[in-house]
Formats: sequence, structure tokens, C-alpha cells
Amino acid sequence: MERILATYRITASESESRVRAEALAAEQSVEMPVAAIGDERVRDEVVASVEAIRPHAGYFDVVLGIAPSTTGAEPSQLMNMLFGNCSLQPEVELIDVRFPAAFTARFRGPRFGVAGLREATGVHGRPLTCTALKPQGSSVEHLAHLARTFALAGLDVIKDDHGIADQADHPFAKRVPAVQRAIAEANRETGGNTLYAPTFSGGSRALAEQSRIAREHGVRLALVAPLLVGIPAFVELQEGLGIPVMAHPAFAGASRIAPPALLGTLLRLFGADAVIFPNHGGRFSYSRETCLEIARRAREPWENLRPSLPVPAGGMGVERVGEMVSGYGEDTMLLIGGGLLTAREHLAERSREFVRAVRGT
Amino acid sequence: MERILATYRITASESESRVRAEALAAEQSVEMPVAAIGDERVRDEVVASVEAIRPHAGYFDVVLGIAPSTTGAEPSQLMNMLFGNCSLQPEVELIDVRFPAAFTARFRGPRFGVAGLREATGVHGRPLTCTALKPQGSSVEHLAHLARTFALAGLDVIKDDHGIADQADHPFAKRVPAVQRAIAEANRETGGNTLYAPTFSGGSRALAEQSRIAREHGVRLALVAPLLVGIPAFVELQEGLGIPVMAHPAFAGASRIAPPALLGTLLRLFGADAVIFPNHGGRFSYSRETCLEIARRAREPWENLRPSLPVPAGGMGVERVGEMVSGYGEDTMLLIGGGLLTAREHLAERSREFVRAVRGT
Repeated sequence: MERILATYRITASESESRVRAEALAAEQSVEMPVAAIGDERVRDEVVASVEAIRPHAGYFDVVLGIAPSTTGAEPSQLMNMLFGNCSLQPEVELIDVRFPAAFTARFRGPRFGVAGLREATGVHGRPLTCTALKPQGSSVEHLAHLARTFALAGLDVIKDDHGIADQADHPFAKRVPAVQRAIAEANRETGGNTLYAPTFSGGSRALAEQSRIAREHGVRLALVAPLLVGIPAFVELQEGLGIPVMAHPAFAGASRIAPPALLGTLLRLFGADAVIFPNHGGRFSYSRETCLEIARRAREPWENLRPSLPVPAGGMGVERVGEMVSGYGEDTMLLIGGGLLTAREHLAERSREFVRAVRGT
Repeated sequence: MERILATYRITASESESRVRAEALAAEQSVEMPVAAIGDERVRDEVVASVEAIRPHAGYFDVVLGIAPSTTGAEPSQLMNMLFGNCSLQPEVELIDVRFPAAFTARFRGPRFGVAGLREATGVHGRPLTCTALKPQGSSVEHLAHLARTFALAGLDVIKDDHGIADQADHPFAKRVPAVQRAIAEANRETGGNTLYAPTFSGGSRALAEQSRIAREHGVRLALVAPLLVGIPAFVELQEGLGIPVMAHPAFAGASRIAPPALLGTLLRLFGADAVIFPNHGGRFSYSRETCLEIARRAREPWENLRPSLPVPAGGMGVERVGEMVSGYGEDTMLLIGGGLLTAREHLAERSREFVRAVRGT
């Protein structure tokens, strides 16, 4: 099989580039001096190859060819080969990864993707709208009341705040039925179709129990932070769940893996139907180019993988809707959380403004 | 309950420090403007508190008091509250975390720890020795032969290379029985007690199957990269496994979470009996102070938690044994992998030198 092409940016002088590139190739495959390997097949077929070195001012990019066989076609080992040991080298950043088609075929990617999310929400011809239940520590009753307000305003998706998990103030087993019921009632009143995306967290037993509760109460969308529960757990969760999953970037430490590679490419490979990422100009420092590249990666044609829905978020307000829609286009979900909640007693009104702004674009 | 004290280093000017500290406190708890929270109890008991701000030249340290209730006393949500969203802010580093005793009591920490590893290996009064089976891509027969050579030389622990997982060249189900058998035979010949630590990887089903195989074949030590399989999976694995676990730092991206906090403190809280970390002067750029601090954190008295065994590794050679033993002391495992394998036809001799050097200290 062709190699996986992984591009690393190394902050070091150009004179070191060849030596550093060869060292990185050994580090990300056999993790021993190549000269000490007696088996010719291992040297030829297992050791990562240096495919290209591209010098820049003060750094250089190295493209390694990683043998697909070393990954076991399994998510944790793939991440290990891409960024296991070299994640500990502060001068090394993984900036891109490209897979041969035969390798991509070993993964399912998104099970629902953009089309599945449009079908579930019934939204066509415009971006989707999303907000978050906050703050953590609120009572279940308060969260359910908030959800009702948002659903009556016509939001497409209401997700848990990424900090609302399975805590004593709002245990999953109490919160999810209550919020789902509040949204279902609002949907009946308005004829709307708002979805609730609760946070799934914890180990495999907790995730299985949360899946059971979600199914029992008719939840139709899930929110998961793959880097927090572990990427293999994220993939396993999808199998039994049967509903689309939104990936949250918490704990992604994305400044060390370039955000388009981690959030756009890898999380799509691992099955995120929608990918939340920090929009430019908000609380996080991603540039506009980085954000547009994440969205491009999430939706570009890629073998047999469905596109993921980009979800720019983080410190957004209703006044930015026009600009975001013109930047990201239609196949997007706009997520405004705190920017609605700061309206306090005008929450319903601000929520309706958001909905109108997107519907009017 | 008292607060969890998390210290963050923020690269920004001192004049911004109060504003940035308050913003971080909101980010790592309620993730919305605190002024917009109507519930007084949430403002008082859930929003993270700014406990201290310490200015330095060009950066400042902020100590946040995180409410234990927000973590659900569960690993993925704890990591979320410590470093979820702010992992995406390149100017923020988590440099320390301290837990109130009542919180620590919710976790078991290492089930075996230093004493359990000494009992399993039968080694007392000196550091333990460790090496790695490499390179990945070798045949199972070659790996078993290597293991036999190391066991005959008297190594205490032989671990899989962190890149050897469950791949077609050496599937877990074939490799582990073969290597364990080779080591058991060598132990019978020498009267020795060498342990094998195979790599556990993948999702919960793969981990359960690997546990079954390991138990069936009498494996007495496990190697796991908690950040690759996911920290909740690492904790769950320990429950059914019944043998000590060594934590590998792959994918830890430790330049963003200070290595002593992640590898020393957090992985101990989550149950690592031994913690592998990159020694200073090897292929990774950790300073001597960082390495000694990781070891100190792993072993210092900490409530009811057993100490973890520090395992400095990464580009070490036999010539450094004396210096490493005087630096790290007796409750240490010295891991030399490639540094033995580069001896090629003198592998048995170099391995015996390593064993003698440690036994003679």
C-alpha cells in the first residue's frame, strides 16, 4: 500500500534539516537507529521514509511516508504513529496528513455527515443554528427551561455546554430526559424540529449507559470531545449509538497539531458528523485562514467519506452572522452560546434575532 | 469541599493579568460571562475562583480554584475542567495542579505502585532495569528471540516498543504468547524473574480481549499510553487487569501541560504504577530539573495514593547508568532500548553490562 504522508514543521536551522528529518522518520516508526536494524524488509517497508524537505526562514517542513501497516488501521495506533513520541518534542508540530485511498477505506468516516444532519434537522438551503445550555452547575429545571426558550425561538440544535457532563448538579440520567422532554414539547407547540445534543463523557461503561438513556428518550444528536474520552472510545461510541455525533475540540491542544489536520481531517476520518472549532475573532486565536481551512477539510471531496459539518463557535455574537455565512457558506452550523445568554431577560428575543438573521441570509 | 488548585502560565503582559485570569476562570468552568449568570449559588460555588496572580517577566502565573463538583470525579471531565478549552489557547500552559484530600480519595491511584513492582520483579535495594523489543515490523519469532536474549542477560522488565501494538506483522494474539513463553523458558533456565510488558492499545473491546489473552498467558505487567487510548479507558483497563500498568507518554504533547503535572501528578492519580518519561540529555528536550521533578511527584507522599515508579527513558546508554542512579535514586526503573540494540551481534554482552552496572551501584 502507498504510504501515509505526514508533514511536520520543525523549528531548527536548515543545516540540521536532513539529520532531523531522518531522526524523525526513525522516531515515528521503529524508534531505534536504522543502522542497527538487521532485517532488510523492516528497513525498506517499515521505517518511515523522508519524502520531502522544504526549507523556510527559521524552520523547515518534512514530509514523512508512514507505512500504513504500522498503524494497525486502528485509531490509537494511527495517532501514535502520527504524533506519539514527537508530541513530546516542543520544536515539532504535525501540520498535515494525507492518506492513500486504500487506507481511508479502512475507516467509515461520518455515518451521517452534512446530509444526515440536514435530514435530522429538516434544514435545507441555509446554515444551521446552534446554541449551548449554560452555565454548568445550574439546576436541571433551569436547563430544561432554557432549552424550552431556545426551542420556541426556533434554534435548530441545542447542545450541552462542553462543561456539562455527568455531575451531581445535573446528572446525565436526570438532565437528558428533562431537557429532551422540554424540547419535544416546544417542538409540538411550534411544529418545529429542534434537536438536543447532550454531552457524552467518561469510560466505556458510562458511554454505553448514556447511549442507552439517550436512545430511550429519543435523543437524536450527541456531543463528544474525542480527545477527552479518547479517540478509540469516540469511534466505538458511534457503532451502538445510531445518531450523528458532534465533535468538541476540548483537550485537543491544537496548537501542536495544526487545527485543520486534527479537527478537519483526522476527526472526519474518525467519524465526526459535525466538528466544532473556535472561530476567528473570538476567545481563541485561530486566524481566519486556519478556520476556513478547517471548514474546507471537513467538507472537501475525500474518497468515500461523507463530509462533516463545520461548526464555528466560541465567543460569537448575532452581529457576526452575515459575515460568518458569507465566509463559511451554507453547509455550516453557527453556534452562539454565551452571546445569547448575555441577553438575560431578553434571551428569547436575542435567540429569535439569531434565527431570523440566519434564515434571512 | 475545598477547591482544586490549578496553576496556569499565561504569556501576556502584566497589565492584562487580572482580566486574563478572570477570563480563564470563566473559560474553565461556566464558559460564559459571569455577569450574565443569575444564580448566585452558581457564581459562588461553580465559577472557578482566581486564587492568586504571580507576575514574572513576560508572563504571569494564575492559580485557579476549580470546584471539585464540576469534575464529576471522573477522569475525562476532570481533564476537561483542567485543560479542556484552554488547551486551544497557545499562550496558556497548565503548569501545576493540587487536589484537596477529599477529592484525591475519589481515585485509587496506583494499585501496585513501587512496592508492587518490587514484589512482582523480586528486586530490592537497587533500581530496576528495563529494555524494549524493537523494531516494529519484526517477525514474532525475532521478537521472541530478542526477549530470550534480554531475559537470559537478567533484565528485570522487557517491554514492547511503544510502536508495537496490534499490527499484522506481530498481532497481539500471536506475539504476546510467544514472547511470554520465551521469557518464561529463559526464567526457568536462569532461575530469574524477568517480566514482559506488552503494549495494550485500541478501543474498549480490543483492550478487553488483550486483557483476556494476557491473563491466559500469565503476563504480569502492562504497557499503555493513556493519552492514546484515552484516560478513561486507561482507568477502566486497570479494573479487570489485575497486574501493574506502566504509562507511556506518547501523544501527551507535554509541552502544553507541564510534564511534572501531567506525567508525575495526573497519571499517578489515574493509577499508573510506573511512569515512563523522556530523560534529560536524550532525544527529548526535558531539562534535568523537569525530570527530577517528574520523579519527585511520582514518589512523594500523597494522601493514601501509592507511589509510582519513575522510568526515565529515551536515548539512554549503559554509560549513563551511574549518573542516572545517583540522580534518581533506588526507586527507579532504568529503561534502555535502542542503546542495547545498537550493539547488534554483541547484544547479549551489552545487556549483561547494563544489568551489572545497575546491580553494582
